[in-house]
Amino acid sequence: MRKILFLSVLFLTAALSQAQEQTKIDSILSLMTLEEKVGQMTQVTLDVIGEGENRFSSYEPFNLDKKLLTKAVKEYHVGSFLNTANNRALTPQKWYSIISEIQNTVKEESRLNIPVIYGVDEIHGATYTAGATMFPQQIGQAASRNPEMVKRGAEITAYETRASGISWNFSPVLDLGLDPRFSRMWESFGEDPYLASVMGVAMIDGYEGEDNNIGHPEHVASTMKHFLGYHAVTSGKDRTPSYIPQDVLREYHLPPFKAAVDAGSHTIMVNSGIINGVPVHANYDLLTTLLKEELGFEGLVVTDWADIENLHRRDRVAENDKEAIKMAINAGVDMSMVPYEYERFFDNLVELVKEGEVKESRIDDAVRRILKVKLALNLFETPVTHYKDYPKFGSKEFERAAYDMAAESITLLKNEENILPLQKNVKVLVTGPNANSMRTLNGAWTYSWQGEKTPEFSEQYNTVLEAVQNKIGEGNVKYVPGVKYIEEGKYYEEEKAEFDEAIAAASEVDYILLVLGENTYTEKPGDLNDLYLSDLQTELAQKLAATGKPVILILNEGRPRIISKFEKDMQAVVQTYLPGNYGGDALADVIFGDVNPSGKLPYNYPRYPNALIPYIHKHSEEQTKAEGVYNYEADYSPQFSFGDGLSYTTFEYSDLQLDKTSGKEGDKIVVKVNVTNTGKRAGKETVEVYTSDLYASEITPDVKRLRRFEKISLEPGETKTVEFELDSQDLGYFNPNGEFRIEAGEFEFLVKDLKQTYLLTE
Amino acid sequence: MRKILFLSVLFLTAALSQAQEQTKIDSILSLMTLEEKVGQMTQVTLDVIGEGENRFSSYEPFNLDKKLLTKAVKEYHVGSFLNTANNRALTPQKWYSIISEIQNTVKEESRLNIPVIYGVDEIHGATYTAGATMFPQQIGQAASRNPEMVKRGAEITAYETRASGISWNFSPVLDLGLDPRFSRMWESFGEDPYLASVMGVAMIDGYEGEDNNIGHPEHVASTMKHFLGYHAVTSGKDRTPSYIPQDVLREYHLPPFKAAVDAGSHTIMVNSGIINGVPVHANYDLLTTLLKEELGFEGLVVTDWADIENLHRRDRVAENDKEAIKMAINAGVDMSMVPYEYERFFDNLVELVKEGEVKESRIDDAVRRILKVKLALNLFETPVTHYKDYPKFGSKEFERAAYDMAAESITLLKNEENILPLQKNVKVLVTGPNANSMRTLNGAWTYSWQGEKTPEFSEQYNTVLEAVQNKIGEGNVKYVPGVKYIEEGKYYEEEKAEFDEAIAAASEVDYILLVLGENTYTEKPGDLNDLYLSDLQTELAQKLAATGKPVILILNEGRPRIISKFEKDMQAVVQTYLPGNYGGDALADVIFGDVNPSGKLPYNYPRYPNALIPYIHKHSEEQTKAEGVYNYEADYSPQFSFGDGLSYTTFEYSDLQLDKTSGKEGDKIVVKVNVTNTGKRAGKETVEVYTSDLYASEITPDVKRLRRFEKISLEPGETKTVEFELDSQDLGYFNPNGEFRIEAGEFEFLVKDLKQTYLLTE
Repeated sequence: MRKILFLSVLFLTAALSQAQEQTKIDSILSLMTLEEKVGQMTQVTLDVIGEGENRFSSYEPFNLDKKLLTKAVKEYHVGSFLNTANNRALTPQKWYSIISEIQNTVKEESRLNIPVIYGVDEIHGATYTAGATMFPQQIGQAASRNPEMVKRGAEITAYETRASGISWNFSPVLDLGLDPRFSRMWESFGEDPYLASVMGVAMIDGYEGEDNNIGHPEHVASTMKHFLGYHAVTSGKDRTPSYIPQDVLREYHLPPFKAAVDAGSHTIMVNSGIINGVPVHANYDLLTTLLKEELGFEGLVVTDWADIENLHRRDRVAENDKEAIKMAINAGVDMSMVPYEYERFFDNLVELVKEGEVKESRIDDAVRRILKVKLALNLFETPVTHYKDYPKFGSKEFERAAYDMAAESITLLKNEENILPLQKNVKVLVTGPNANSMRTLNGAWTYSWQGEKTPEFSEQYNTVLEAVQNKIGEGNVKYVPGVKYIEEGKYYEEEKAEFDEAIAAASEVDYILLVLGENTYTEKPGDLNDLYLSDLQTELAQKLAATGKPVILILNEGRPRIISKFEKDMQAVVQTYLPGNYGGDALADVIFGDVNPSGKLPYNYPRYPNALIPYIHKHSEEQTKAEGVYNYEADYSPQFSFGDGLSYTTFEYSDLQLDKTSGKEGDKIVVKVNVTNTGKRAGKETVEVYTSDLYASEITPDVKRLRRFEKISLEPGETKTVEFELDSQDLGYFNPNGEFRIEAGEFEFLVKDLKQTYLLTE
Repeated sequence: MRKILFLSVLFLTAALSQAQEQTKIDSILSLMTLEEKVGQMTQVTLDVIGEGENRFSSYEPFNLDKKLLTKAVKEYHVGSFLNTANNRALTPQKWYSIISEIQNTVKEESRLNIPVIYGVDEIHGATYTAGATMFPQQIGQAASRNPEMVKRGAEITAYETRASGISWNFSPVLDLGLDPRFSRMWESFGEDPYLASVMGVAMIDGYEGEDNNIGHPEHVASTMKHFLGYHAVTSGKDRTPSYIPQDVLREYHLPPFKAAVDAGSHTIMVNSGIINGVPVHANYDLLTTLLKEELGFEGLVVTDWADIENLHRRDRVAENDKEAIKMAINAGVDMSMVPYEYERFFDNLVELVKEGEVKESRIDDAVRRILKVKLALNLFETPVTHYKDYPKFGSKEFERAAYDMAAESITLLKNEENILPLQKNVKVLVTGPNANSMRTLNGAWTYSWQGEKTPEFSEQYNTVLEAVQNKIGEGNVKYVPGVKYIEEGKYYEEEKAEFDEAIAAASEVDYILLVLGENTYTEKPGDLNDLYLSDLQTELAQKLAATGKPVILILNEGRPRIISKFEKDMQAVVQTYLPGNYGGDALADVIFGDVNPSGKLPYNYPRYPNALIPYIHKHSEEQTKAEGVYNYEADYSPQFSFGDGLSYTTFEYSDLQLDKTSGKEGDKIVVKVNVTNTGKRAGKETVEVYTSDLYASEITPDVKRLRRFEKISLEPGETKTVEFELDSQDLGYFNPNGEFRIEAGEFEFLVKDLKQTYLLTE
């Protein structure tokens, strides 16, 4: 009863404050000139207003250029800034000084005193704040299958972002990580729309609070990105064309965004790519009809970096910058991440409105959305939060949460003859280019865009090597890198580093911990031409295996680089993804048995570079024999599959039951299954329910689809009954016109190797 | 004047005969029972009516099983047969005996005496006839850039097909070969829609005659295949899902089919895959609305192998076979290539009509289309042509045409320091798995489906080794295979064969002719997981290069297997594609200078397995630097590009002119350019005109597109002015709704490195 009462009061408050908010927005808007409105729609990167040689970089240490700042906020009424300066993390103190100076200048110099909104990519912790707590990247968070941990991580990131005076976070990524070639796969929650939806909502709940009260000084505005279908590129390269039909758009790409809009996320960022020939930044059907009208999104739509110019300069649907601005704003963009030549954006947009090419009502709509977020963030009362009010910044408590998530994300893919865990009295060789690198443990978007500045900020954390030394003593650990990345080079540039010595060192130890993967990258610099793990690392693995000493392969990579040329010679394979600053510690605990691994792969790990078939696919991708002379062979054989992940204990599934064998549309279906820990130690297991539509009349059905999951803990010998509720919505699909269909017929419910049939009747 | 008169008479004849034909069709149809109609729609493979253990294979030598044949044509009224038996070529005599026995049985046993139509895949010559003339496969024909030769080849194939008593050829492939992973890329005319249109029409003109008089005893009915978008699969695997939006469908995939329908091709085969979730065999919008209504196709639509069953058994849009048949026939399929369980197709379709699930009017439409082709083929008068009437079968004249096309298709991709042509007094090592194989020179669809039976039939032709021996004398040629294919294995299985001996032999010679590539494959068995040329062949190339002897790399492959790991160490690269039975002779003539090469690559040759960007692409695929901190790098760098192809002489282009610098919609644009042979020997050059639309408002424009080409011959020092006429249609594009747009604005006309600008005004 108390709960219901409490909720009603909350609802009343929310309703009142919504009306008040509307009045406030109206009253501000009524005071604004056209120029002031357009200024609100303009977002500028920090270097533009810093002291420096030009607007692309600043002097170190960074200082605002008062004259440039005043010009931006006074003459051009700029309403938003973003990013760090010189692509380098700053201390909370420095952030406070910068943002409070900006807000003060607004107060002093601008007519209406509308605070700016400051946005940063804080994607696995507060990326651009020195001393912040770095979590596993999203791909590892998805592997944890633990939405509570994801939410807790986002709460901490929100706290530390506010501790840096920043209130807008360009996170989470809700794109599907379905292309192993894509340079940002690791920024996603993997390839499954349901998993991405659950994890995305958990992250938004963490950033904004479950009530989306982003005025709370420990919450930030979240950004759903990148609307829509950003990772689904034909060539695999960043920001290149996609072909996405209506059914695919709605069946796979839209659900995480729909769930996030329903969860109340305040802002959204647009896909920089081209879908079906049309750049998304110019696509009215997606940005207005689908997003704002159909999904009812009332928040703020911001472009990605320079993407209005790109309509002219790259994608050539606009003959000049002015035409590009007209297209994007009319398509539904509310704010332009310009980020450099803001005067051009401002002047052109003002002109366009005066010429009637963009209606002032469109401008008003955009500015209302921007003001709404600024009001919700309480920026009018508190334009900048103060680091002194955030005593838990970088605390042990936060560190523990980041460690826990790393520990739950690590995924044991192979464990021949239970070689893992190792005893703590063994001698090991630690080798490979990722063995002693905080940079690679974190990935890009860590203290700098491409992650190259991580060493400046991460001295106090443990690499894999250091964590293993801490665990079993330096005397038991021999370290030889074998291969190293060229630190100033491109992410794929590497060279031998005591290569022969690494091979030779094998004879001195009991086990080899071979830590391979990738150097850090994101976006275009991370584009890939060859999914095989590098030749040099492959050779290192092959030669180490040839020594006869058992090799534990530890992967530290943003995307699944192909290891089929040597995987069979590895006794164990452990995927760490990009586990963050505590990934080394968590890995050492897994390797030596202090943590029982429980991560599950959030994508299919391919075996060959031209066999990139995701777990969600059609039957024709795994065709077996046909009758007669044309005896086709199957060729669906990923190295590891979505959902794979071993434990040091074993689980047995039994007694899968549905509460009914048939039902009609609207009926709930309760699924129960028993899971028993049949091994000798406690462990965590993620129980997954898939469904399979045997026939679908308007479209070829997927082989199977994930519908529910739950992560449970089991003591040795313990059995739990896990229960899921599904309904007929979970059995439907989108037809080629993008209409949702629920069709009568037979369905299978699959949990591990158990199967039950369900008949949906007319 | 004579010409016009002649045409009028022809037209009158055609009109009369069309009316007569209609009357004849009506009168036959009026006599037919439902069962007889459904029988016409049923196509059965030869093994089903052969003496044998079961319907999937027959005893050797093949004999018809009179009882099974009578059952098919009498009880089930089967109207069509296809394919050879036991997947093995037959002599013209044997073909005559089989087909005449079938037609005689129809005459004796069936009520209405409607001749069967016999169809076979005769895709580069009469595939399944022993002794027939084998041309280069389509991909090589496209490289010749010589439509006259393509037409001549098709005339010869038609002649030799009729010499085998067969009147229906499942050729040409009009799909775009835009995916280097695809197992049938080599069956296409390459990646460009215009090139495929020109070559496709030339081939149809050759098969059917320019007047499409397929009743002529030297013509056959052609088959446009595979309608539509068959090669554009997401995963690269045969018969798997594609995503193709409307603009892409119409801009790229449709033009070759539209041109072929306009050219009068009599039949069409359907794409076995799935587009946007819907199997094409169940797609009414494509088969009826687009093909039959919009394009006005009046001929016969046949399925591909077993593709109606596949709607149920593989693609699961139909809950049972009967539902699958209903979907396909109602979508617009006229004939089912069943090919085995024809009773199931027949019984179900009869029932469906009786139940009203398929309208008899749809059946009548299908049967009309089938009868129309049978009448046009003159089968009622001449059910089978007689080999004795075809004295030129396998003649020297035909051989010369096949040799000429091979010679013009061979494409010189690299010729460091003009190492080629070689003198005839040198010593060479011939090595590599393709060096002594008629099978690999021909590719699949040669005497057998996968090409594995080629050695049985090709003793009299020259492999590369034999041709080189003939050219410079056996004493000057050392042959060591190095690597060989496992003949009974899968296409990608190979092993060392005197590997070290091959390396050692380098020291005895002046040059190495290294013949690498692929063994033969098509369809599912040709699916590929890794586009790199095999590890073993790569190692052979690297080790031969390391000997220091100059290596001439000769490629003999159906798709561009990646050679970037050793290409820089090869002094010359010669692409032969799959040049047919005279490919060895033609190659030797090129290598030793008796032929000056003139082939042009019909696709982009990739450098890496995950960088498969075709020449037709958007600007974002070759993006260079952006301003500011996010300094992206370009990554478009194919190993060789569409249109590449060197000569032993040099050509200089000059004085590119347009007849006007601006014009409006409907205006013709005449393009002239001078081409001079600046070298010392005669040569052929393909002059290509590309256009580039600088900005397009509804869609991102392609970087450039081929609009015209012409192959010319030039003596040393000779200059020719080449003239092309384009019009504004060549400057338009399809918008996302599939509507054609011609937009005012600036365009560039590009010929080699020359450029002229054209302004299209409102």
